[in-house]
Amino acid sequence: MTAYAILPPDTLLAAAIQHKIDRKTKPLGALGRLEPLARQIALIQQTLEPEIRQPHIVVFAGDHGAARAGVSAFPQDVTWQMVENFLAGGAAINVFTRQMGLGLSVVDAGVNHDFGKRPGLIDAKVAHGTASYIEQPAMTAAQRDAALQSGRELAHALAGNGCNCVGFGEMGIGNTAAASLLTHCLVGAEHDAELYTVTGRGTGLDDPGLYRKRSLLARALQRGGRPRDPLAVLAEYGGFEIAMMAGAMLGAAEKRMIIVIDGFIVTSALLAAHAIAPALLPYCVFAHRSHEPGHRVQLDFLQAEPLIELDLRLGEGTGAALAFPLVQAAVNFVNEMASFEAAGVSDQA
Amino acid sequence: MTAYAILPPDTLLAAAIQHKIDRKTKPLGALGRLEPLARQIALIQQTLEPEIRQPHIVVFAGDHGAARAGVSAFPQDVTWQMVENFLAGGAAINVFTRQMGLGLSVVDAGVNHDFGKRPGLIDAKVAHGTASYIEQPAMTAAQRDAALQSGRELAHALAGNGCNCVGFGEMGIGNTAAASLLTHCLVGAEHDAELYTVTGRGTGLDDPGLYRKRSLLARALQRGGRPRDPLAVLAEYGGFEIAMMAGAMLGAAEKRMIIVIDGFIVTSALLAAHAIAPALLPYCVFAHRSHEPGHRVQLDFLQAEPLIELDLRLGEGTGAALAFPLVQAAVNFVNEMASFEAAGVSDQA
Repeated sequence: MTAYAILPPDTLLAAAIQHKIDRKTKPLGALGRLEPLARQIALIQQTLEPEIRQPHIVVFAGDHGAARAGVSAFPQDVTWQMVENFLAGGAAINVFTRQMGLGLSVVDAGVNHDFGKRPGLIDAKVAHGTASYIEQPAMTAAQRDAALQSGRELAHALAGNGCNCVGFGEMGIGNTAAASLLTHCLVGAEHDAELYTVTGRGTGLDDPGLYRKRSLLARALQRGGRPRDPLAVLAEYGGFEIAMMAGAMLGAAEKRMIIVIDGFIVTSALLAAHAIAPALLPYCVFAHRSHEPGHRVQLDFLQAEPLIELDLRLGEGTGAALAFPLVQAAVNFVNEMASFEAAGVSDQA
Repeated sequence: MTAYAILPPDTLLAAAIQHKIDRKTKPLGALGRLEPLARQIALIQQTLEPEIRQPHIVVFAGDHGAARAGVSAFPQDVTWQMVENFLAGGAAINVFTRQMGLGLSVVDAGVNHDFGKRPGLIDAKVAHGTASYIEQPAMTAAQRDAALQSGRELAHALAGNGCNCVGFGEMGIGNTAAASLLTHCLVGAEHDAELYTVTGRGTGLDDPGLYRKRSLLARALQRGGRPRDPLAVLAEYGGFEIAMMAGAMLGAAEKRMIIVIDGFIVTSALLAAHAIAPALLPYCVFAHRSHEPGHRVQLDFLQAEPLIELDLRLGEGTGAALAFPLVQAAVNFVNEMASFEAAGVSDQA
């Protein structure tokens, strides 16, 4: 197992940061959740003058063998078609990253389609989709390790280009199903009934579709069991895009980047990354609370509270992109607001 | 009483807008709350290609006679000192409007201070603060009408300059107390006990401070009663900044602008404006859910659901500014996302 060089941020600066925040021209605590967010970022960067540089969203795409068994409302071809849509600039994540001034990279982690050499597409394809975890492990140990390593290198390359804040997104028909299995195993669930509490409608299953998805996932569990080791879980049930995201999160934490966590599927990758190296958690900012029922279970497990809740269920990193202005606002108020002293404003009586 | 020329948006276009949203490359409804927001804006603007032009925040400042009786944790001088901070660019609303690309205007609606001619400050001063509603009506009918009219003219002037989206903010030591009285009267409360459910800590009162504030407001109610007419309520308990905001909201709705509603105090102005002309409500976008207990009562009354909830308790329009990127995102996805047909993506099975 790769040893990841991740240290939690030193908290020696915490009192000085808090003092700086408290002298801003506002009542104590009046900027609400932006205040702990500012503290977190200042600690990650070990400075009283934090800065967001070249913020970026990376969307990882991959296919799932189980999709052909019917765990999604959409056909598997939609994965590659949506990658084409990303490359053409027409998807929601393109719109929101343009608006927010975020860079966007699209990664083929394992789509079941040959794109050829394409400008704007990072080719990190592990294979043409995973195997169906209903019948066999989704990937081999070698495939999983390759995915983790590609993700890690990708994060290191972003850091090398000056980026210090990265959000992750994903595209993969059937990947809420994989995320449900990963979540079930990684939060330590022990009974089939608990599977249902982390299995939802994904992008829009109807009642019979949800019933079928749950039955298929229960069959997968009967075959593959409930491994507790995160590497074993990733190989058994993961997607290439999920394993690669986990590697990218670990690589980003090694480089002390702010990691913006999107919704249910991204958080399933974080559960794996966190099980591998718990010290990455203080680098994570949680963007959007999803209605997908498993997201609540994940957030409770990680004791995390997302910044926004807009009933999004699209993936692609859209929640991360939409929450990004709040991350920037947390940094900006620390740097730009006047203090009571500088502005000549009377403090609280 | 001024007759405001406000018509609710024609809903004839609703089906065409919904169809356009539903053909975007995403599962039905997957953009969550951005979708009804996009519909609302498209109906306000009566177009399938909505557009935000020159978005703007206007901060109204005014003083309250009752502040000297001790309804706030801060001395009254903080109102003018914070106006100076706005003019110098050092307050939170300056930081956030700069970040979000929003225009910012600061209005002296009735601060107890002589600023003289100052670049960047709009002088609409009605008087040097209101009278204390604990002893007499806060303002005369003539003062109230002047405040409403100035606000209306200000909104019309913004529209004349090409702005079609305006958010309101306020600064006034003691104005959560006035907002509590306005809310109590305008939601039709009948008992003193209901006053307590709309009276909170404002920017940070401790327990004895909250007790004093509640006692003072109960005395005000004993003196002034519970008028139901919005004009009478404004004169009895209002602030100049609150009355001027109400006028500005009415003027903005006359000009079919998107009105971004901030927190508790801004919503108290909206309650008055809404009682004067209910047709303005479909023009309003609710930005931030405040922890101030009266805000929940207001939102329930108006059946409104804010976009974000960040525990802000600062005023100044900061909630409106921080939510603005979501308003822009709703417009952008309608205009910029590809349709299933255009992108060659397979639709839901």
